Amino acid sequence: MPTENGLLLVVSGPAGSGKGTVLAELLADPAFAYSVSATTRAPRPGEADGVNYYFLDRAAFEARIANDDMLEYTEYCGNYYGTPRAEAEAVLASGRNLILEIEVEGAANVKRRYPGAVSVMLLPPSFAVQEARLRGRGTETEEKIRARLARTREEVAKVEDYDYVVYNRDGCAHAAAEDIRAIVRAERARLARNADVATRYFANEE
Amino acid sequence: MPTENGLLLVVSGPAGSGKGTVLAELLADPAFAYSVSATTRAPRPGEADGVNYYFLDRAAFEARIANDDMLEYTEYCGNYYGTPRAEAEAVLASGRNLILEIEVEGAANVKRRYPGAVSVMLLPPSFAVQEARLRGRGTETEEKIRARLARTREEVAKVEDYDYVVYNRDGCAHAAAEDIRAIVRAERARLARNADVATRYFANEE
Repeated sequence: MPTENGLLLVVSGPAGSGKGTVLAELLADPAFAYSVSATTRAPRPGEADGVNYYFLDRAAFEARIANDDMLEYTEYCGNYYGTPRAEAEAVLASGRNLILEIEVEGAANVKRRYPGAVSVMLLPPSFAVQEARLRGRGTETEEKIRARLARTREEVAKVEDYDYVVYNRDGCAHAAAEDIRAIVRAERARLARNADVATRYFANEE
Repeated sequence: MPTENGLLLVVSGPAGSGKGTVLAELLADPAFAYSVSATTRAPRPGEADGVNYYFLDRAAFEARIANDDMLEYTEYCGNYYGTPRAEAEAVLASGRNLILEIEVEGAANVKRRYPGAVSVMLLPPSFAVQEARLRGRGTETEEKIRARLARTREEVAKVEDYDYVVYNRDGCAHAAAEDIRAIVRAERARLARNADVATRYFANEE
């Protein structure tokens, strides 16, 4: 039987997919860990360095990129966002599964660099439900809602690049979290992740 | 969201893998079904037609093969063993997952014919544990035990053709059954099994 490293789990989902709730449930389990991202954007009131983000200036962020210290990064609205590599790899080596909550562009980059990463697209059950959720919040302007829905077209167009699609129905965030848990458990049993099964078996390497 | 057909699940495992216990646990769940095999071997005392096997004579079995009525079949020790296709397909159409407990040769045939089938090799944690289990039964001759262990070499050599490997540790048959359950749940979420995700999403096909 193989020794187990953690799984690198990429989760993307449009606004209204309920990602926050689903990931919070997974992260309550010590088998799952989250990695704090780095960014060049200014801290918002209440945000703490090393908790919400590592806040870096542009020169420091670019030095990290040049040094290959970012597992993935992207530029968005004039600011960099990225995942510090050393911290992420330490989590994986400890056997915990690392969740990266990233956009579709970053997800493709991670898959290219780490072919063993597993990517999950979390979706509301339909576009109509997504729209109802965004409007139901009652906290965003019509303009912002329209921008989010337009962005969804681009995101869902990329779903074919993902390994799995999980639907998060109203009131069923727990089921969606259980789907992701099952994906992690199944992936560990994939032949592709279990090298030399026959050799180890007859060598009695339990 | 997609409508769901049952999954065709092929499970193989050497003597001492604890397949019987693990599959019995899965089959206690109505989401899983078993298909009664057909055979040309004579019924043993207590075996009933349509319960343990469908007992057919050689001409009848060969007519079924010629008619493409067998989902898979194999010849072993001079007798045919096979899975009647109509019954199997009816189970899948009803949305239940169909478990085929078959040998490595049959498993390869099923995967060729049904690329959507998922194959699982169930193994004891090591060859030493397997040997201890077989000897611990105390019901078989030394010759028979040696034959089973020799056969295991051939079986485990084929493990690379399987999609998943599940280890059944002593006292952990429940965990092995849960692994298989997770595999089925994860497979349903694989992009490869979810056609036209984007189209259906925007068409609001829940």
